[in-house]
Amino acid sequence: MVQDRVTRITTTPVAFHDLPLLNTVGVHEPFALRAIVEVETAAGLTGLGETYGDEAHLARLRGAADALIGTEVFALNDAAARVTRVLAADTTTGGHGMSGMVTGSSTADRVLSPFEVALLDIQGKTVGRPVSDLLGGRLRDRVAFSGYLFYKWAGHPGAPADEWGAALDPDGIVRQARTMIDRYGFGALKLKGGVFPPEEEIAAILALRAEFPDLPLRLDPNAAWTVETSVMVGKALAGVLEYLEDPTPGIEGMAEVARQVPMPLATNMCVVAFDDVPPAVRADAVGVVLSDHHFWGGLRRSQLLAGLCRTFGLGLSMHSNSHLGISLAAMTHLAAATPNLDYACDTHWPWKRADEDVIKPGAIGFVDGAVAVPDGPGLGVELDRDALGRLHEQYLSCGLRNRDDTGYMQTVDPSYRAVSPRW
Amino acid sequence: MVQDRVTRITTTPVAFHDLPLLNTVGVHEPFALRAIVEVETAAGLTGLGETYGDEAHLARLRGAADALIGTEVFALNDAAARVTRVLAADTTTGGHGMSGMVTGSSTADRVLSPFEVALLDIQGKTVGRPVSDLLGGRLRDRVAFSGYLFYKWAGHPGAPADEWGAALDPDGIVRQARTMIDRYGFGALKLKGGVFPPEEEIAAILALRAEFPDLPLRLDPNAAWTVETSVMVGKALAGVLEYLEDPTPGIEGMAEVARQVPMPLATNMCVVAFDDVPPAVRADAVGVVLSDHHFWGGLRRSQLLAGLCRTFGLGLSMHSNSHLGISLAAMTHLAAATPNLDYACDTHWPWKRADEDVIKPGAIGFVDGAVAVPDGPGLGVELDRDALGRLHEQYLSCGLRNRDDTGYMQTVDPSYRAVSPRW
Ligand SMILES: [Mg+2]
Ligand SMILES: [Mg+2]
Repeated sequence: MVQDRVTRITTTPVAFHDLPLLNTVGVHEPFALRAIVEVETAAGLTGLGETYGDEAHLARLRGAADALIGTEVFALNDAAARVTRVLAADTTTGGHGMSGMVTGSSTADRVLSPFEVALLDIQGKTVGRPVSDLLGGRLRDRVAFSGYLFYKWAGHPGAPADEWGAALDPDGIVRQARTMIDRYGFGALKLKGGVFPPEEEIAAILALRAEFPDLPLRLDPNAAWTVETSVMVGKALAGVLEYLEDPTPGIEGMAEVARQVPMPLATNMCVVAFDDVPPAVRADAVGVVLSDHHFWGGLRRSQLLAGLCRTFGLGLSMHSNSHLGISLAAMTHLAAATPNLDYACDTHWPWKRADEDVIKPGAIGFVDGAVAVPDGPGLGVELDRDALGRLHEQYLSCGLRNRDDTGYMQTVDPSYRAVSPRW
Repeated sequence: MVQDRVTRITTTPVAFHDLPLLNTVGVHEPFALRAIVEVETAAGLTGLGETYGDEAHLARLRGAADALIGTEVFALNDAAARVTRVLAADTTTGGHGMSGMVTGSSTADRVLSPFEVALLDIQGKTVGRPVSDLLGGRLRDRVAFSGYLFYKWAGHPGAPADEWGAALDPDGIVRQARTMIDRYGFGALKLKGGVFPPEEEIAAILALRAEFPDLPLRLDPNAAWTVETSVMVGKALAGVLEYLEDPTPGIEGMAEVARQVPMPLATNMCVVAFDDVPPAVRADAVGVVLSDHHFWGGLRRSQLLAGLCRTFGLGLSMHSNSHLGISLAAMTHLAAATPNLDYACDTHWPWKRADEDVIKPGAIGFVDGAVAVPDGPGLGVELDRDALGRLHEQYLSCGLRNRDDTGYMQTVDPSYRAVSPRW
């Protein structure tokens, strides 16, 4: 029987520049952190994975990496079992990579994810086929993404304005959207809300609608609102939003809002693990789940989530964090092979410097708001070892070790508190 | 990009000898019908699938086969879409292969199944790996099956007694169980009930318990009982049955029984398609789902069912019809790669003549109640073309074209009617 086993795993934390993007728990720090996973096999193949870079997560990744030495490259079930076993003794906290906005995801699935992706990358290289083929084959050659708009400061505190400049009101958001569409060609827009009082964010969405009459629009305040406020916003934006994302915390609150607003509610906060699915379904809390292979246990388990959504009549979209090219490739393969992906996927890609990545340029990118599915074996992207070294040096020198949007905001406004709901 | 496409599909109906096994809709006819699917590719590979042999099903298989020419061998999503499209125009009825006992399964999933299995067989041969590797890798080297006991006549009407003889009372069932365990080593037993008044079947289970104090026992009357009767039986067999399978028809009735009996209820009748899962979950109707890749759309979609069960806290077992070695191989690969397969799988294998199959001997078989997962590429079984020819000749000459347990029973007892519930 043909076998190829994992002989070595390297986990490298990296940092890349980020802009002062505002959200309801604070503001993005000057660097975003990620961890790059390289899995090597006895046959000399290497697979890539990308995940969060927070310290507690890094420690778990290293424990899991040790446990995964010797895993057969097609043995995804065994890999999951190994990760679950080694984490059974884990009592550390934190390391969610989301600055406290999403804390309910499964630690085992979060840790498994980059290794599962790397194993699929290796499987694809073994077989000479793209990862999408291992997921049932692509149903589309191009995966549509949405333009992800953020309120933002002109520049980081103490630094000059960045090329995007400030976006702190409807005009600023419309300007940002125009730039983003001009550059990337997105056919859908999402505004990260929860930053200003809801009336101002309603005004921003209405301004986007006036400027872009045909684009699907979404608003995501990350549970910044009470049920009452959420209902008010939902009614004010009836017929305008494609979906309203996480207006209020918790399944119960979302269910209450869902009963009173006309558009579907979407979530990447109250349904973030398989254990959340039964209560959400029973409560009819959400109409759309934003999958994210980084916390749903990788690509195969994200396909299980897709099947759950299809079975229960839920829509399916895709969530994103600040990410690099390995994640973009994985997201694209997954989306291409998921029949019921009903919406354009989220991505933070436009906020990343074009010259900062860990993969060799040219393999993957945006045309007309979409990413062509890579044709090469595996993920279809190749590690740029020099670039990895540079971003690792940047990690070492930047001083950041955990994502902390709230703490960063407090350096500007010491009275700032992350509260949910805020309005 | 490497590709290999389907160039030819052959569907061959076969018949193999069956014994007069009794159930609540009648009695097994002298031959069981199956269809053998061979899928050939441009690269010269062949994949095998096995499914029901009823006429309406055969016609649909042939329509689907035409639509599948040109499918890329890793493009399972595309294959499913092609089958769904070609069946959208299908207005024929019947062809469920279950003599009216299960009619709610998805036609698209039933038709897709043998082709999906054959494509996975080809993928495995392409890659040089067993199908279980394509399903996430085996978690066990041997898959446990249960001994499937049937009330039966001594022989077919007008024919001499067969080697098993009659089993029409508790003593006969215990004797049959002893023979089956001696020959196959099964570590769990299932009695097909719904044949005699429930008191007699309770007595048979208690006799099995007395004779085999340590073996898990199951009873499956195929919805022969009212809610009231089901509750009576469930209470009478408290602490004796591992699970009670389909005591009564329908999700609502099952939910009512579930509330009143101490053991889990299992089903392969009220949850037979993905559309059945939400109502069953909402009603808390069942504790165990018996998967069956022949009507759940193949192996990958059966894994989705497994994930649904795990997510919703349902147990998972496996259902069987009269089948040959291709199905046994597919069932074994699937079971080996399914983490949450909680029970020994069903199989009709002991009721088949050892010298009747369509695969070359030696690749697969029972030791100590379990089947070793084949190590060879793909399913790990090879078509025996002479044997296929013989069983196809037998199909042509036997005169049977549709499974009809009820009609066969009526040739013996013209007053016989299939009614549910019967008691
Ligand atoms: Mg969100
Ligand atoms: Mg049954």
